[in-house]
Amino acid sequence: MVTELPAGLMASALVAASSANLGPGFDCIGLALSLYDEIVVETTESGLTVEVEGEGAGQVPLGSSHLVVRAIERGLQASGISAPGLAVRCRNAIPHCRGVGSSAAAVVGGLAVVNGLAAQVDSMPLSEAQLIQLSSEFEGHPDNAAAAVLGGAVVSWIDHGCDPPRYAAVRLRLHPDIHLFPAIPEEQSLTAETRVLLPAQVSHGDARFNVSRAALLVVALTERPDLLMVATEDVLHQPQRAPAMPASAEYLRLLRRYNIAAVLSGAGPAVIALSTEPELPSEAVEYGTANGFTVSEMAVGDGVRWSSGVAVPG
Amino acid sequence: MVTELPAGLMASALVAASSANLGPGFDCIGLALSLYDEIVVETTESGLTVEVEGEGAGQVPLGSSHLVVRAIERGLQASGISAPGLAVRCRNAIPHCRGVGSSAAAVVGGLAVVNGLAAQVDSMPLSEAQLIQLSSEFEGHPDNAAAAVLGGAVVSWIDHGCDPPRYAAVRLRLHPDIHLFPAIPEEQSLTAETRVLLPAQVSHGDARFNVSRAALLVVALTERPDLLMVATEDVLHQPQRAPAMPASAEYLRLLRRYNIAAVLSGAGPAVIALSTEPELPSEAVEYGTANGFTVSEMAVGDGVRWSSGVAVPG
Repeated sequence: MVTELPAGLMASALVAASSANLGPGFDCIGLALSLYDEIVVETTESGLTVEVEGEGAGQVPLGSSHLVVRAIERGLQASGISAPGLAVRCRNAIPHCRGVGSSAAAVVGGLAVVNGLAAQVDSMPLSEAQLIQLSSEFEGHPDNAAAAVLGGAVVSWIDHGCDPPRYAAVRLRLHPDIHLFPAIPEEQSLTAETRVLLPAQVSHGDARFNVSRAALLVVALTERPDLLMVATEDVLHQPQRAPAMPASAEYLRLLRRYNIAAVLSGAGPAVIALSTEPELPSEAVEYGTANGFTVSEMAVGDGVRWSSGVAVPG
Repeated sequence: MVTELPAGLMASALVAASSANLGPGFDCIGLALSLYDEIVVETTESGLTVEVEGEGAGQVPLGSSHLVVRAIERGLQASGISAPGLAVRCRNAIPHCRGVGSSAAAVVGGLAVVNGLAAQVDSMPLSEAQLIQLSSEFEGHPDNAAAAVLGGAVVSWIDHGCDPPRYAAVRLRLHPDIHLFPAIPEEQSLTAETRVLLPAQVSHGDARFNVSRAALLVVALTERPDLLMVATEDVLHQPQRAPAMPASAEYLRLLRRYNIAAVLSGAGPAVIALSTEPELPSEAVEYGTANGFTVSEMAVGDGVRWSSGVAVPG
């Protein structure tokens, strides 16, 4: 049975950027960042309008193919409700196509805002597990989506034995001494394009290498930030992507020479440095700025929040 | 400068069995078990005598090629001391060639007993880091050795950028709800033989699979034992070893059908089940017993201990 929403309901959601593929944790270790997109929807008598402010304004399609709209439609369907018409407003702070999870944020935000509508007709909200599942189905991998849903640092996994694959994740308690410094370049990159650079086969030794470092990264992120340098070593994706993004690769090398645990954010070209120091060395910041990166400290991001009404959830 | 020990000094060490290669954590996630070998040494005027009681008695060489003796010699060298002669007694409880870390225990125990001698001539003891390094150099991989040194569950790693490779490890706090049930068969296996069954190349997808499960296994062992089943999934070594040890492979399948997180212990043929239940299903125990396995509950093992004197360290 499908519940039809009346016109005039409003809901909003706040959803974080994220860094996925953290070091050795390709497709499985992610981290939410305190940079948020806001989505506000209103049910209308009919039709669809989409407004975008900030990042992506004037660049993304404003109809039913808009990613937030597709996620809202999927969320409505999964919740067993429908809307006669929708007015969607996106206030975007997360840059697109840089590797900081803007598409995961769009999908998670679109799904979550449905919970804000559903609450007004006494419909069950989508659970965290459902939000992770549905958003990862859009993404094809769960690490950005899970970070956006749960906040904090996450370990996610895929069970390919199901159709569609089952996606799940757990949140880690990020050690409070860890400071996060994303460095986001002007230049864009498309995940789908960069993913094809990865080899079909790797040596068993390289697989073992990343297995050990990924296990260690969980320890380093939660208990032993002093081990972040060795725990962020990777041979499965960053070296392979380097030729496609030489500026990012060079910046990673420079940061790591300063003994700062820097890794590619997602599929790049953004870079994120994890440090137990409250500031990056000024030379490292200057180098980044001079090479087109916006370097800033961010807190770890919260999980997606939603509310009924126009007020952005606090 | 080498300090010559006088004759008549005694020292002893107590060192645990271990399960390495835990599930996805090939070469990096290990676990000490509460099954201990004891080593007692006495410095003599000259020569070498070796006595072995229990496991390995009558099967291992009793001269300078004995693994404990070789480890003692390495420990003495690393500590800058020498002994005119040695009498070595091994009281072994850890079965050989089953995948429960008897060789790592021999090496770690041999190195550690040197600390008991060194203390009597005011020589610096070998640190935990040194014990891990030296014992892993014997083993070629650090996960059994690190578990025997540190006790508990461990994540270890190898830095191949050095010569010899640098081996290191951190201890995890094993969740108190996890019960350990090793199942040790009568049949022996040689690690070196079973290791050659592993493929040189694996798919990037399989590498990613184990990366995600190894990261998750750290979470499951420390915080979320409810996730042990999915966290012990592996595609990098257990399926490849199965044809060489069909009884172990079949027992693993049976235990996992009971929803018990069972994995090969080391390179097998022993199996270890990790469960949040205080007992295994009686059918699972009976099946194991009927198929040549000795199934028992063990506590997690302590790190290696040593003392000056003949008393086994408590």
